[in-house]
Amino acid sequence: MSKDALKIVTIGGGSSYTPEIIEGFIEKKIAGLLPIKEIHLVDIEAGKEKLTIVGGLAKRMVEKAGADIKIYLTLDRREALKDADYVTTQFRVGLLPARIRDEKIPLKYDLIGQETNGAGGAMKALRTIPVILDICKDMEELCPDAWLINFTNPSGIITETVLRHSTIKVVGLCNIPIGIVNKIAKLYDTQAANVSVEFSGLNHFVFAKNIYVHGKEVTKEVIEKVKDGSEISAKNIPNFSFPADILDAVGMIPAGYLKYYYNREKMLADCKRAAQEEGTRGEVVTQTEKELFELYKNEELAVKPKQLEERGGAHYSEAAVNLIDSIYNGDGKIHYVNVRNNGTIHSLPNDAAIECNCVVTHRGALPLTVGALETSVRGQISLMKAYEELIIHAGVTGEYLAVLKALTINPLVNDSDKAVAVLKDMLWANQKYLPQFADWFEQNRE
Amino acid sequence: MSKDALKIVTIGGGSSYTPEIIEGFIEKKIAGLLPIKEIHLVDIEAGKEKLTIVGGLAKRMVEKAGADIKIYLTLDRREALKDADYVTTQFRVGLLPARIRDEKIPLKYDLIGQETNGAGGAMKALRTIPVILDICKDMEELCPDAWLINFTNPSGIITETVLRHSTIKVVGLCNIPIGIVNKIAKLYDTQAANVSVEFSGLNHFVFAKNIYVHGKEVTKEVIEKVKDGSEISAKNIPNFSFPADILDAVGMIPAGYLKYYYNREKMLADCKRAAQEEGTRGEVVTQTEKELFELYKNEELAVKPKQLEERGGAHYSEAAVNLIDSIYNGDGKIHYVNVRNNGTIHSLPNDAAIECNCVVTHRGALPLTVGALETSVRGQISLMKAYEELIIHAGVTGEYLAVLKALTINPLVNDSDKAVAVLKDMLWANQKYLPQFADWFEQNRE
Amino acid sequence: MSKDALKIVTIGGGSSYTPEIIEGFIEKKIAGLLPIKEIHLVDIEAGKEKLTIVGGLAKRMVEKAGADIKIYLTLDRREALKDADYVTTQFRVGLLPARIRDEKIPLKYDLIGQETNGAGGAMKALRTIPVILDICKDMEELCPDAWLINFTNPSGIITETVLRHSTIKVVGLCNIPIGIVNKIAKLYDTQAANVSVEFSGLNHFVFAKNIYVHGKEVTKEVIEKVKDGSEISAKNIPNFSFPADILDAVGMIPAGYLKYYYNREKMLADCKRAAQEEGTRGEVVTQTEKELFELYKNEELAVKPKQLEERGGAHYSEAAVNLIDSIYNGDGKIHYVNVRNNGTIHSLPNDAAIECNCVVTHRGALPLTVGALETSVRGQISLMKAYEELIIHAGVTGEYLAVLKALTINPLVNDSDKAVAVLKDMLWANQKYLPQFADWFEQNRE
Amino acid sequence: MSKDALKIVTIGGGSSYTPEIIEGFIEKKIAGLLPIKEIHLVDIEAGKEKLTIVGGLAKRMVEKAGADIKIYLTLDRREALKDADYVTTQFRVGLLPARIRDEKIPLKYDLIGQETNGAGGAMKALRTIPVILDICKDMEELCPDAWLINFTNPSGIITETVLRHSTIKVVGLCNIPIGIVNKIAKLYDTQAANVSVEFSGLNHFVFAKNIYVHGKEVTKEVIEKVKDGSEISAKNIPNFSFPADILDAVGMIPAGYLKYYYNREKMLADCKRAAQEEGTRGEVVTQTEKELFELYKNEELAVKPKQLEERGGAHYSEAAVNLIDSIYNGDGKIHYVNVRNNGTIHSLPNDAAIECNCVVTHRGALPLTVGALETSVRGQISLMKAYEELIIHAGVTGEYLAVLKALTINPLVNDSDKAVAVLKDMLWANQKYLPQFADWFEQNRE
Repeated sequence: MSKDALKIVTIGGGSSYTPEIIEGFIEKKIAGLLPIKEIHLVDIEAGKEKLTIVGGLAKRMVEKAGADIKIYLTLDRREALKDADYVTTQFRVGLLPARIRDEKIPLKYDLIGQETNGAGGAMKALRTIPVILDICKDMEELCPDAWLINFTNPSGIITETVLRHSTIKVVGLCNIPIGIVNKIAKLYDTQAANVSVEFSGLNHFVFAKNIYVHGKEVTKEVIEKVKDGSEISAKNIPNFSFPADILDAVGMIPAGYLKYYYNREKMLADCKRAAQEEGTRGEVVTQTEKELFELYKNEELAVKPKQLEERGGAHYSEAAVNLIDSIYNGDGKIHYVNVRNNGTIHSLPNDAAIECNCVVTHRGALPLTVGALETSVRGQISLMKAYEELIIHAGVTGEYLAVLKALTINPLVNDSDKAVAVLKDMLWANQKYLPQFADWFEQNRE
Repeated sequence: MSKDALKIVTIGGGSSYTPEIIEGFIEKKIAGLLPIKEIHLVDIEAGKEKLTIVGGLAKRMVEKAGADIKIYLTLDRREALKDADYVTTQFRVGLLPARIRDEKIPLKYDLIGQETNGAGGAMKALRTIPVILDICKDMEELCPDAWLINFTNPSGIITETVLRHSTIKVVGLCNIPIGIVNKIAKLYDTQAANVSVEFSGLNHFVFAKNIYVHGKEVTKEVIEKVKDGSEISAKNIPNFSFPADILDAVGMIPAGYLKYYYNREKMLADCKRAAQEEGTRGEVVTQTEKELFELYKNEELAVKPKQLEERGGAHYSEAAVNLIDSIYNGDGKIHYVNVRNNGTIHSLPNDAAIECNCVVTHRGALPLTVGALETSVRGQISLMKAYEELIIHAGVTGEYLAVLKALTINPLVNDSDKAVAVLKDMLWANQKYLPQFADWFEQNRE
Repeated sequence: MSKDALKIVTIGGGSSYTPEIIEGFIEKKIAGLLPIKEIHLVDIEAGKEKLTIVGGLAKRMVEKAGADIKIYLTLDRREALKDADYVTTQFRVGLLPARIRDEKIPLKYDLIGQETNGAGGAMKALRTIPVILDICKDMEELCPDAWLINFTNPSGIITETVLRHSTIKVVGLCNIPIGIVNKIAKLYDTQAANVSVEFSGLNHFVFAKNIYVHGKEVTKEVIEKVKDGSEISAKNIPNFSFPADILDAVGMIPAGYLKYYYNREKMLADCKRAAQEEGTRGEVVTQTEKELFELYKNEELAVKPKQLEERGGAHYSEAAVNLIDSIYNGDGKIHYVNVRNNGTIHSLPNDAAIECNCVVTHRGALPLTVGALETSVRGQISLMKAYEELIIHAGVTGEYLAVLKALTINPLVNDSDKAVAVLKDMLWANQKYLPQFADWFEQNRE
Repeated sequence: MSKDALKIVTIGGGSSYTPEIIEGFIEKKIAGLLPIKEIHLVDIEAGKEKLTIVGGLAKRMVEKAGADIKIYLTLDRREALKDADYVTTQFRVGLLPARIRDEKIPLKYDLIGQETNGAGGAMKALRTIPVILDICKDMEELCPDAWLINFTNPSGIITETVLRHSTIKVVGLCNIPIGIVNKIAKLYDTQAANVSVEFSGLNHFVFAKNIYVHGKEVTKEVIEKVKDGSEISAKNIPNFSFPADILDAVGMIPAGYLKYYYNREKMLADCKRAAQEEGTRGEVVTQTEKELFELYKNEELAVKPKQLEERGGAHYSEAAVNLIDSIYNGDGKIHYVNVRNNGTIHSLPNDAAIECNCVVTHRGALPLTVGALETSVRGQISLMKAYEELIIHAGVTGEYLAVLKALTINPLVNDSDKAVAVLKDMLWANQKYLPQFADWFEQNRE
């Protein structure tokens, strides 16, 4: 860990987010915090064009900043992983068209269609699990001591998959908690550094409590502001207010995704409306991405363009770069990340991934003890974790009945007849990304 | 416990079920298993007429059987409880009209209306909790060593309420497990004594596994029979089949009430249909009861009439009487009852009530260790227990926000806007049975 | 399990206990409870003579009883195990000379020398673990569905070893609990069937509570009798009284072996005295065995001789035979056996072996939930279980440091200097029975 | 918490340690970290003279430093506590003579006599518990929101007593972990800030693992240095080396007090030797204190004298002052303190006090999840916690049998006959400090 020439690998390097993470690495290098020598941007054949474009921008950024970092663009993942120190992942199996299917198919069954929640989220996990385990297998062979910094969604499920099925050290990231902290800071017209929040729960099912601003407890005050319409949610979530009574009752700020659960009917209606009007989020993003890559092509551009912040995943890369800084320097800072529960939250299994405040040292992210959750949240999160476990199991084994159980108990499906219908439809639509289900496809061929 | 002149008190003694429990006590007395001296049938003013009718039948039954038992009819609960040995409860706060409201109001909001599940079940619990705690307070004073054999629904919630808020020894009963055992016996054309089943879960949310008939493991075979339409459910639950895939996936036989969860949409449709056609279950039962009481009035009748078995609650009294026999004689038999978890099911709190196989001795019902539940069931049951805990809390404190959270996470509501709407409607409809909510009514008066 | 021609294998069949187990099997066969067709008595070359003698008696017993059971004597364990239904184990690695060493070497270091406790017990476990795992490996291949009924000591450690390192179904037996029940029955001049006791703890570290005789709670009364000198302990434990204050304080009857812990100094003194005077228990037993085998040789003898009851291990075989009866017939009777904890005792790991009341069905022994132990017992048992885990780990891996830690924390050693000294001495003395320590012997050769 | 005029109360203000804590407060005040306005040094009548002397020095120190802090000396605890913000405790019930008795009486029974361990430690706890609960009762009334910073020994037991029996927010301190960090820093010739260590366990039964110096993992290296005689222990513990094998086997650095457990026999011998030669530690300290107070009397002295560092309790006050700084400023620094377990260490009850790394915020000390302990340590610590729970119970209730059980299972006693003997002797010797045992004294009067 005292290595002074770090090799970083970014899988899914052709992503539109790449300029953000490159910007972050440049800053750390210049500040003397991370002695980065090489960054390898890895992508697959289908992403080659984007990789070339965004990789070109990355190189111009490094050069303009005068940072002594070498950028490599490659389709050869194994070559890149050899002796890596940190591996970040930001890939999307099936690209945006797969996301759009995840959003649209459930609507046919009167179910919420969303990238990381409900039937769509399950399908995204099933597509991603074989790929992440493949990456881990390579890492076990080529860079067994490297850290895997995962921000591929569904981040919690992917992190738990790695924790359970690989020896690679992993931390799972999400931009939701850091986004909440930033928005609270904005409400109080101050810096995020002056805001202290305790997060606990699961990825995309996390709650913020014990909020302090400048050392003053303001949890109830923030709840009142949120009731009055102050927005705490991420970009991609419709701007409804949480029901005031629910906020009072749980006494915490739920992550924006919780609207899909608390306001299920309203959100379903909005999913349908959006699909008819502006398009699903995936369709909107497809357009945004197109525009971003047009910008990136510009040979004059050598900094991260402002427009990237509109993209929705803001702070992900910031969180990743800061996390690597904390691990490398063992600075003991608190990050909000996905790690092995290990007793932190009483009501969850020890080997489940949870999202919570962690102190980051050379040894990685050590969670701060949480203990008992608020009763209703305990119930919800226990259910969601059972759902996640079943999805992970199915993602690894291709067990149809496990996915069926997972969807049946998921509150966004909540009916076994619907679960059967949506599941079959989505499995066939994703066939080419689901090698683990080969037997099922074989047996269910008409 | 070596007392040889037992005093038994039945609260809600005017119930149409009373002849069954009287029959059971007579048999035990005659068999020399329970030296019952007195049975006190207690009811409230509103139930006086029914008490007189069914109490008359009870006296004729005892006389005809030649059993040396004295039957007392009374409206003075405290008088009856003095020095009691066993207290059984079978009352319904608000009588059948309240049940019919529980069934009908949720339908207005497109929600399942049912006596012990969803919004209706919550309301029944809120009405019952103040009464059961009142009875316990009397018992703590007048018969602190007596056993409370509860079969007032929702039996699990009521049992947990007593476990948490009283020092009285309690066992909670349900006729669902014994009904499943009997139906399996029938499928195999044998006696229940030749059937061995392990139950685990919560009251009305229980699963049967490891089924043996004549010493042969037949779980999968029973699952196949259930898929083919063999009915395992209780009388009051529509005869849909469980989805075959779900049965295979969980590998257990779910209690019939689980249909409300697995087949939520189909069951909702049927609730609506029934309300339009034959009437809700409460309306049907109102008619059945009327007919039963007509029979009971017949001075010639001195045995339990066959028609009572059609009533739906069959085996409840049988279970109660056998349980008292096992406690009194410490016979070590296995009963399927509601008791303190105490680690039996890993994923539930120690002080939660669960329903499972118990060995019954002089010390009461000792659960057989269960351990880990099947993953999806673990998720569902953790959620349901959180719901139950919130309802118990609200039943004791009158905390509106706790009920709101409970309904919001309950899979049969699953939306906070709907939860708010149905809850307010039902609270006002039940105002006179909800003394603990006095402040809320005061503050929300128009 | 509905097999009607059972094959039983007894490993260590040349033991002096064999006539007891044969007697038990004959009774079950004649009563129509166990359709035993064959009993295979297996031993090793060194035990051939004893096997021939006791096997001859076994054959005469079967014949005299007119039981249609075929007895086989063999040194070929694999041959015997093929398609077995129940396998019982009662072997002693290193025979009585090894036991005598276990008793004597610790005395050199001013430590209690005992067969199943302290340094001696640890050494016995280390000798036995490789052998039991070898047997299990054979069983996994030759009779994977057979039940292993282990009564080889230290029974708890051996049972946990099998639970952790094999797929064979195992139940661990001990005669201590049944001995306590019998002695309580004797105190009250009644049959054991009228006595009800709840046991919980670890093998040879078990406590009896909630004692009922004829349905009356008599725990305190029994404690008083024990204070007054009524003996509850087994034959091989010196007849000191437990300290009265300790009995009052824990409120339970400790197994006799607890004297080694509560009265450590007095027991150490007695160990030393005995070694000087009548000889250690192993030396005494050597003589008893010699006499027993003389009796067994008598061709006229065709029943279990009375003298066997003096041997010390009374009831072991009775317990084993009754256990097989309960498993085969699924009779739901309660046995006091060693099984996987699975949450039964809160403070112990799920996969630890514990000793407690279990309901026995076709599926084996299902423990009755215990919950929290009395505080001091919780502390002692947590320590002892850590000791046991370390011994199991060392028994499997040959890890010297694990045994050292185990002995250092064991209350009968309780000092690391002494632990080092006694351990090295005992390892060398047992070298030929400790194949797993080959590396250590190699590295520590002078 | 944004209060800008802090009132601090130090109970046991006449202690020889007071100059250290005063020095710390002065530094924090001058650095602008703690806006301390008043420090109230409280003592009892018997400590009046010392209070006057050390209080005089404190006043001179404040004046010389030019710190705007007012020092009050008082025997009126309630007056001082009124509206306090932070209360520190550093008292010794019975003063040094009681300590000397704790050290000497056990020696009569061939048992280790030590201030915080074994029979002596138990007695110190029993004397202190009534006093600390009295202080808490006053605080609940007079300054319910104040923080109690306890460094009265046995610190873990006292902290758990407050956690269980009071609503006052408490953090328990010990100088052992900070001492270990400092000594490791010295071994590497660096500052403590460059050393990172993870502590877990109980107070005075704590282990250091995952040691990093300048970001490099050096745990094994430190273990080697300790084997070679590098001293890690505190002043008051004889300088024996830990057995090398034990260090390798546990893979951690045990707190120096662990020598009493691992090297019990050697330490007992040294206790006896010391009592004969230089006197017990309490006797030595009596002399040191006398000399310190002579120094303190010197009107010229206006700074903490160097000689105080020889006293043995070094760093305690430093730890206390830094802890208050972190709470007040919510700086998120890591402290090694005693807090409620709450699932941090799996094998201990949720409401037990443990000692571990904590992040300190405005909300107090939040433990970093530990999870499972090394097996032998898990066993030892489970035993020690049972001992502590029994002592706390007895300290509150005066239950003789609870102390007896505690001592019987304590590894430094480990025999019930000795436990009875030493306990009776020590109870009588401490009679005037044990009001909770009034009944026992009454019943056992000769």
